[in-house]
Amino acid sequence: MGLFKSKGVVYRPVKDVNLGSDSTEFYLQANVKAPRMTGILVKIFTWFLESPILGSLLFYILKGNNLIHKLITNAELEESPLFVPSHHFEDHKEQEVKCLDSALTPQEQVQLAIECLPTSSEKAHNETNPSFSRWTIMDYSRAYSSGDITPLMVAERFIAAINESSKPPLRMGFFINYNAEDILRQANESTLRYQKGTPISVLDGVPVAIKDEMDCLPYPTTGGTKWLHKERLCTDDACCVKRLRLCGAILVGKTNMHELGVGTSGINPHYGAARNPYDINKISGGSSSGSAAVVSAGLCPVALGVDGGGSVRMPASLCGVVGLKPTFGRVPHSGVLPLNWTVGMVGILAGTVEDALITYAAIGGEISSHQSSNMLTKINLPLLPLTKSICDIKLAKYGKWFDDCSDDVRLCCSHAMRKLQDHYGWKTIDVTIPDIEAMRLAHYLTIGSECSTWFDSFGEKHFAEFGWDARVALNIYGAFSGKEYIKAQKLRNRQLQFHMKIFAEADVIVSPTTGVTAYSIQDDALKTGELDYVNGAALVRYSISGNFLGLPAVTVPVGYDKLGLPIGLQFIGRPWAEATLIHLAFAMQAICLSEYRKPKIFYDLIKKS
Amino acid sequence: MGLFKSKGVVYRPVKDVNLGSDSTEFYLQANVKAPRMTGILVKIFTWFLESPILGSLLFYILKGNNLIHKLITNAELEESPLFVPSHHFEDHKEQEVKCLDSALTPQEQVQLAIECLPTSSEKAHNETNPSFSRWTIMDYSRAYSSGDITPLMVAERFIAAINESSKPPLRMGFFINYNAEDILRQANESTLRYQKGTPISVLDGVPVAIKDEMDCLPYPTTGGTKWLHKERLCTDDACCVKRLRLCGAILVGKTNMHELGVGTSGINPHYGAARNPYDINKISGGSSSGSAAVVSAGLCPVALGVDGGGSVRMPASLCGVVGLKPTFGRVPHSGVLPLNWTVGMVGILAGTVEDALITYAAIGGEISSHQSSNMLTKINLPLLPLTKSICDIKLAKYGKWFDDCSDDVRLCCSHAMRKLQDHYGWKTIDVTIPDIEAMRLAHYLTIGSECSTWFDSFGEKHFAEFGWDARVALNIYGAFSGKEYIKAQKLRNRQLQFHMKIFAEADVIVSPTTGVTAYSIQDDALKTGELDYVNGAALVRYSISGNFLGLPAVTVPVGYDKLGLPIGLQFIGRPWAEATLIHLAFAMQAICLSEYRKPKIFYDLIKKS
Repeated sequence: MGLFKSKGVVYRPVKDVNLGSDSTEFYLQANVKAPRMTGILVKIFTWFLESPILGSLLFYILKGNNLIHKLITNAELEESPLFVPSHHFEDHKEQEVKCLDSALTPQEQVQLAIECLPTSSEKAHNETNPSFSRWTIMDYSRAYSSGDITPLMVAERFIAAINESSKPPLRMGFFINYNAEDILRQANESTLRYQKGTPISVLDGVPVAIKDEMDCLPYPTTGGTKWLHKERLCTDDACCVKRLRLCGAILVGKTNMHELGVGTSGINPHYGAARNPYDINKISGGSSSGSAAVVSAGLCPVALGVDGGGSVRMPASLCGVVGLKPTFGRVPHSGVLPLNWTVGMVGILAGTVEDALITYAAIGGEISSHQSSNMLTKINLPLLPLTKSICDIKLAKYGKWFDDCSDDVRLCCSHAMRKLQDHYGWKTIDVTIPDIEAMRLAHYLTIGSECSTWFDSFGEKHFAEFGWDARVALNIYGAFSGKEYIKAQKLRNRQLQFHMKIFAEADVIVSPTTGVTAYSIQDDALKTGELDYVNGAALVRYSISGNFLGLPAVTVPVGYDKLGLPIGLQFIGRPWAEATLIHLAFAMQAICLSEYRKPKIFYDLIKKS
Repeated sequence: MGLFKSKGVVYRPVKDVNLGSDSTEFYLQANVKAPRMTGILVKIFTWFLESPILGSLLFYILKGNNLIHKLITNAELEESPLFVPSHHFEDHKEQEVKCLDSALTPQEQVQLAIECLPTSSEKAHNETNPSFSRWTIMDYSRAYSSGDITPLMVAERFIAAINESSKPPLRMGFFINYNAEDILRQANESTLRYQKGTPISVLDGVPVAIKDEMDCLPYPTTGGTKWLHKERLCTDDACCVKRLRLCGAILVGKTNMHELGVGTSGINPHYGAARNPYDINKISGGSSSGSAAVVSAGLCPVALGVDGGGSVRMPASLCGVVGLKPTFGRVPHSGVLPLNWTVGMVGILAGTVEDALITYAAIGGEISSHQSSNMLTKINLPLLPLTKSICDIKLAKYGKWFDDCSDDVRLCCSHAMRKLQDHYGWKTIDVTIPDIEAMRLAHYLTIGSECSTWFDSFGEKHFAEFGWDARVALNIYGAFSGKEYIKAQKLRNRQLQFHMKIFAEADVIVSPTTGVTAYSIQDDALKTGELDYVNGAALVRYSISGNFLGLPAVTVPVGYDKLGLPIGLQFIGRPWAEATLIHLAFAMQAICLSEYRKPKIFYDLIKKS
């Protein structure tokens, strides 16, 4: 990190920092002292925060407490700020991939993705007789084509399942909005296409859920709030939603999310908690909580989320599904709420790596409407069939960071990594990633400043309509100075240099996806939301580089804790290296498939009747 | 602009804004109420500013006063922030230019630039018999080659001139540092090269001065302060300085500048005022004050400056020389003080357009070390000889803005434009550029936040060593919030969209370079510096889009006010359209050349002895 001065850290020049296993860089554990608060405590805290003098005092203490003063505000570093983590496509060529012509239609891209999938003959034994596996897009496609079942029947089962699951005793809180009529209409059209023998693509008739952070007709886009959709009307599909529609997917509704994505629990005071299908008394994680839960529960093979601070990967990991966060700018963001401009990316939640690949092919590519709008962002697909494992992959592991998690998570992820190495003969190199906690705080400062700037457009008139935890978040979010914001961007540049140096030696960085598994939902948190910065910090611990540096990352289920709650392993890749990540994820999945367990809440939509 | 709400402006969507001459957009004049302060008043003001409670109160009043609250802090606009004004080279192809291979050496680029210059036979009558013209690089080159004079003789005359001009009664304050020995050493080497008949380029032996904001051995880089060079050692030439050295130029020293470039007067409390060669009791303008003054006084045909808020164009205009501010990222910035990261660019001050072109060819091109480091920034040169004027140029003029200046400036610039149209038959279209004052404030907020972030690295220990006006500036600079910084970047995006729409209709935007001519230096300002926000706003009025939007711009002398002080006309071009700007500037210069006047302070370094 560098010399600790009275005021702030003086960061050493990047070239002087040892990134090897023998590095003397200090691993700073998240120093979060804030107690877990729910119910009345949250309200009292909020009142304090919003009171003129006490408020500013509290901010000062909070900042000091969470080290922002020492690591950012008063820090000294020579790097110039990097405001946007845009990576130039041409600078990062992947091995063994096919780069699709950006003029292709989503349907055509999906068709090419399918050619990467294993044929049934190629499938390993444990893939053909797994202990448990969710229905895949190909399962749906085959079942529809064979006539075993129709999209209409699936839609009816889906609607019945939602009606059941949303009522007591389950109260799963999967969706903020869904419209049975609209679902049936789409299902009818799809059914007709299959009857005519003219399905649009393998996604035709496949139910897909959309996080309520992106536009999808005919629904309003609430962002998990009670008011946003009244201020900002939804007049069109988001670009990536439009692409799924073009492929014939049935858009089944808007999934629940943490209010404005400002938290990690997925408990929404207005729309309930998206409960974890593996244990309905546990959180599903946030902020794309509903999208993870519906995929986990078998209601959709895939759902879309948005990942601004692990918001796709965390709930995916906690709900035992695959989560893919693409490179910054890979997916067009038009029609996605601009809750931030430099860290967020549409992501995919899927039951299997294969389905993540197909969905990625459907929504990826083209010019991004992001900041870095003149980036070329074609889409890459694995050139080799997934069953052909890439030879000679190098994995990078930072032990102190990797191990900074619960015993169950550590043991499970270490075990999974060993199996991966043994099975494919891949090497792991030990590295050191400096200043990870400083990066977490810099990211927090960045997403916070951007989110509150966006919120400013709506004035304070809606403040009272927020849940208490969102109110607290937005209060803190808006409290940073311009200098602090720019300092955070200097740290972004510094961290990117560290990561690119590591990627010069290794293909991916491996870590757990979260530091803890799904924790309990406290009843009094349901109304107020909760402030749990300790669990929060543990959940986001491994997510930040994906967002702050714009790197692609994928999480794969690799096991369960003592309570049977899912655990995910994360691969972080070079810019634009989604194809490599998908390859690795598939390899990992193939090993773990035989141990996958069925969630307590699971709906079997395409079994023969 | 948009609807004025109690709190802040609500900006209309870009598509709904009329940019035509019939637009109803309101032209807001700079609303600066601050009185001009010098001497003890500045000190008192500073004490207020730095006192805990009164200070914050004063900030609030200042911000409210200069409209930042209404136009930025509380404004509502839908654009996403644009943090860096980087333009993609390939997106902006110029007509009739040659794009040089970025593998060329500076000498080769200079050679190609010379092929664009008019031959003596091509020169117009008024060019061969002008009323007054400064010696050009080609004049030096020819004089050296013919043996009429040697670089050594020029160096000796130069040193004598500096010695004279720096003493009373003149006290010109041209340089912060110059080293007679080092100058003579370079001159000797150059003289030998000419004797051997092996000059490196036409720049061989030509004296060139460097603003003390960029590294140039053997000098320290003070940035106009008393302390910076002790904290930050100069260990190498800045990249653009290195390129001039490669061409054989004699680097004659570090020119005076406004302390840290935070002001526009060019009065430096530590190194004196760089006085205006046309009237030594007037300012030369800032912040590249010394660079403008030495070129104006005939001590160098060219000098380098840095333009973060008109800092090259303003002094060039006030001192009657040419000022070229290239596209953001066109010139590498390694070795330039990082006083900001998103608005500054190395610029050229030259006695003639031809010399600006040659120098631009010497320092331009290659990958910029700026933020947008993966921009391709090859260099463009006019394909046609400058004497061949481009047919069918369209000029855009915003009348209300153009006319928002002193009577002398308005009359002179309007007259020059008419002559340009009449002589070349070019058309002018009337346009409206909305929210120019908002852009000025957004730029101020941006450069201020970035500059104070940079300064933070040195802690407060040097605060007392600042001149009083710099202290005030840095106090205000650091006072903005992260939300305000991001809001300013949203305005940057919006303004760029407006400008690109105008550039779809016209090739360049024409305006005066400054709203006023050089004003008087008050004696008590010499020690304390001065706070003159009214004159300051008038000086920067036409500069901002060049910096905030990263657009190239050039200023050409077109006349004089009643007191005989120079007036400049500015052309603002499309991204990467330097070649077009140089063409236009040459055309303008050719018309005005016959009326150019000799400054009161002028040194004739290469007249035959």
